[in-house]
Order: sequence, then C-alpha cells, then structure tokens
Amino acid sequence: MTVPPPFSDSTAAAPGPVEPGKVWLVGAGPGDPDLLTLRAARLIAGATVIVHDGLVDGRIMALAQPTARLISVAKRRARHTMPQSEINALLVAEALAGHDVVRLKGGDPFIFGRGGEEAEACQAAGLAVEAVPGISAALGAAAAALLPLTHREASSIVSFVAGQCKGLSEQNWAGLAGVGRTLVIYMGVANAPAISEKLIADGLAPETPVAVVENATRTDMRVLRGPLAGLANLVSVAHVRAPAIIIIGAVAARSDPELADTELRTLALEAHS
Amino acid sequence: MTVPPPFSDSTAAAPGPVEPGKVWLVGAGPGDPDLLTLRAARLIAGATVIVHDGLVDGRIMALAQPTARLISVAKRRARHTMPQSEINALLVAEALAGHDVVRLKGGDPFIFGRGGEEAEACQAAGLAVEAVPGISAALGAAAAALLPLTHREASSIVSFVAGQCKGLSEQNWAGLAGVGRTLVIYMGVANAPAISEKLIADGLAPETPVAVVENATRTDMRVLRGPLAGLANLVSVAHVRAPAIIIIGAVAARSDPELADTELRTLALEAHS
Repeated sequence: MTVPPPFSDSTAAAPGPVEPGKVWLVGAGPGDPDLLTLRAARLIAGATVIVHDGLVDGRIMALAQPTARLISVAKRRARHTMPQSEINALLVAEALAGHDVVRLKGGDPFIFGRGGEEAEACQAAGLAVEAVPGISAALGAAAAALLPLTHREASSIVSFVAGQCKGLSEQNWAGLAGVGRTLVIYMGVANAPAISEKLIADGLAPETPVAVVENATRTDMRVLRGPLAGLANLVSVAHVRAPAIIIIGAVAARSDPELADTELRTLALEAHS
Repeated sequence: MTVPPPFSDSTAAAPGPVEPGKVWLVGAGPGDPDLLTLRAARLIAGATVIVHDGLVDGRIMALAQPTARLISVAKRRARHTMPQSEINALLVAEALAGHDVVRLKGGDPFIFGRGGEEAEACQAAGLAVEAVPGISAALGAAAAALLPLTHREASSIVSFVAGQCKGLSEQNWAGLAGVGRTLVIYMGVANAPAISEKLIADGLAPETPVAVVENATRTDMRVLRGPLAGLANLVSVAHVRAPAIIIIGAVAARSDPELADTELRTLALEAHS
C-alpha cells in the first residue's frame, strides 16, 4: 500500500530560510465519513493545517487532531465568504510559510471543486501539489439510492453538469439526457424550475424520469422521484434543500423502489396536510 | 462514523432453513489500495466470500482474510470467462445459500460496472443489496495526473463513455467534447484509431487536446498527451495497454507538465531507438 510521506517538520523553528510546505488537494467525499479514502483519512488525521469548505461534514472535521489549525473558506450560494483568488493566495501563503496544507473539499477536487485553479496557483508559486480523489456526490448518491448511472439496457453515457451557473439560458443539456444517456445536475435544486423548463424547451420529453437525492449518504438522506415536468413541484412540495443531486434519464426509474416509495408516501402525506 | 452491520453468522451450521445472506456491491477504486474507501476496506477484510473481476488490484485482494473464498469472474476484452447472467446467478446462489457476498469491482459499481444488473437480479430474488461507491477510473486518473475534469476557464460539463462498445459507428460523441466540455473514454485504447477518426468525422477539431492515462494511480502509471488527430499514433508508439483512460478537451492540456513531459521524453527516446 502506498503511504504518503510524513508531514515535513518545517513548522518547527529552523535556522535559515523556511522550506516551503506541500499542498494536498483532498476530496472528502459526499458526506458519510466512512466513504473517505484511506489516504484522505490518514492525511486529515495527520494534518497541522486544514483549509476546508462548508460542504465538508462535521464528523470528518472531527477526525483532525485537536491541535490542527482549521481554516474555513465556506462557499455557499449567496454567502461567498472568500473569493477563489483569495483561497488560492491563502494556500500559497501557508505553504510558503513552511506549512504542509491539506485543502479539503466536499466530493472530488477535480469535479466542480475548482481544484484545477488551486493546483495551478500553487504550481505557479513553485510549490509541490498532489491531489487525492474523492467520491463525487453523483457516485455517492447513486450508490446510496441503488441507482446505476449507467446500465446496458438504459444508458451508456453519463454527464455531470453544475446547475447553479448563471448562464443556464446559454446551455443546452437536452442532448445529455436523451435516450441512452444519464444527466446528473450538481447544485441544481435552487434552479429546479428553470432547469426543467429549459430542458423541456430544448426538446427533452416531459415524462423523462427524474430522481432527486438530498443529503446523499448522510443519515438524513431522501430520495424523491417523478417525471421531469414535475421536478419543480417535487422539489418545492418536499422542501428539498442543498446539497442535492438531480439525476435525469431512464436509470432514474430504476432506483431502489423501497427507498423511493417511502419518500413518495411521505410526500403524499405532506401534500394532503 | 456509520459502521455496516457485522456479517451475519448464517454460514455456521444452523437448524431449519438457511437465512439468506446479503450482497454488497463494492467499488474497489482505480488500483491503488490507498484509494479504497474506509467502508470498502473493512468489508473486504471481513468478508468470507468475495466475487471479484480481473481489474481489482492484487494488493487489494491481499487484504482479504486467508480463509476467505475468492471467486474470480474476470472479464477482459476478448476473454469473457463468465457471462453477466451467470455472474448474477452466482451472486444470488451464494446469498441464498446463506453467505454474505462482497461483489468487488474495479472503480465504481454504477459507472460501467454493471452493478445495476446485479442489484436488480438480487432484488428480484428477494435479497438485501447495498452498494458502496468507489473512485471511478476517471477520477483516479485526473487526480494522479493533476488534470481537472472541470475548470471554470475550460470546461463545465464532463461526460463518461465506454470506448469498447461495438456500436461506435452509431454513437456521436463529438458534442460531448466541444468547447467547454470534457469527454472521458473508458476502455478505449484498443479502439483508439476508430475513436479519433469518428470524433473528427463528427466535427471535433483535430487539434483538440487529448491525454491518455495508463494504469492510473498504480506505480507504473504513464501520462501521454497530444492532439486528437495523433491519438492513434500516440497509443501505438507508446504501446499503451488497458487499463487506460482517454481524456479529451481543453483540460487535457492542463495536466501536470512535469508528469507529461517526463513521458513525452521517454516516448521520444523510444521513437528514435
């Protein structure tokens, strides 16, 4: 088993110029701490400086040493506490000051995680960078809901898009969710009405199956299903909140019937109350 | 931290009818055992029956107990040792006989892993099934090559397709790799010439950047880069073998220059020898 090198001791007082630290871009997975990779768990437990965003579960942060310095750069829709350029500068400054830095991100660092920008900023400063992949939210949601993203009878292409982007009107995702294709939308629940309208206007059938997985892999996970035309209503009636994943295509009708039925019953009760 | 229930003791001799076991569909990740999830590692270490395919690294199989029964259903191109229907039947038979079964797959069970078919077969037999996600090869390759699959300046959509399929001529993937999009092809190296020809015929620019990551995350990993028009030659000259991931789009030009340059130098030497 490959073991990452131990953290350098460069934080200790040393004579002469400080030797720069290394930056680790680490995926924390979808929420459940049990879905951390072995390497991520060891890096978190051994870190002296962790720069993390708001999507990282508290149970994961609890794995850090009590003496570790935890720096939050929480990014949530409509309350950006730190612009990306400042996060990049923070990572560079900490590493140049001699600290090994674990940059901990929800999901995977290279799927909607802006890990590429952080890696480039660190490399431009001459720093060593390494990335540790994580279970991206789509994979976590699919496994937890027993919903295959590909299926020989239903889908041979799966695409991931980000649903919070301002340029929704310029996008055309309909082709990504046609016959034989699965479309997964990250960060899309707040835009659910616009997304379903746009997809149908672009040619996707209104009855295309949709599954919404809220808080995937966490103890409060919910799985909701329905047709694309009812997506806005489904999200609104069930009060779905981020983080949630929207899965569109024939595979969405194949998720674990027990899980989904429980939620639909709950939903029906709520709608009648 | 969520702990899966311990394996039931139903393999021990018991009076009366045998209580069925449970089937776990477990992703083994891209190769490096350090990229197993904590849950997968624990399930493997505790399993009495493991049904695994050929892509699972030997170092991962070595984590199983010496007394565990390991059943290989290796599937490699052109030497299918067991059809999918027989694998499904095997899982059902083992569980009905009272064994908890770990079905161990390279990567993630629900991305080109046929986990959906196995889950359905088990559910149809009335068995309990649970899926444990794994680091899919694309995520492992991207992290190891420091190559972001999405990037605010380069790509906001990433699509995964399987390149070994017989119906390549009926596919049109060019739209998946256009401006602002990343296309990842699994199991495509054997078809590299046909894939690049088809993509260019369907309208993709011949100079679109491509990265090929062979044996991603393993100690013998190689990263090769070039334009789409040169893909067949790149794969052929460097003798790239499966397992390998092909990444097409602007992000492929952003992979770690040190990694790629080392390989290009090796390649140049080989080409001249």
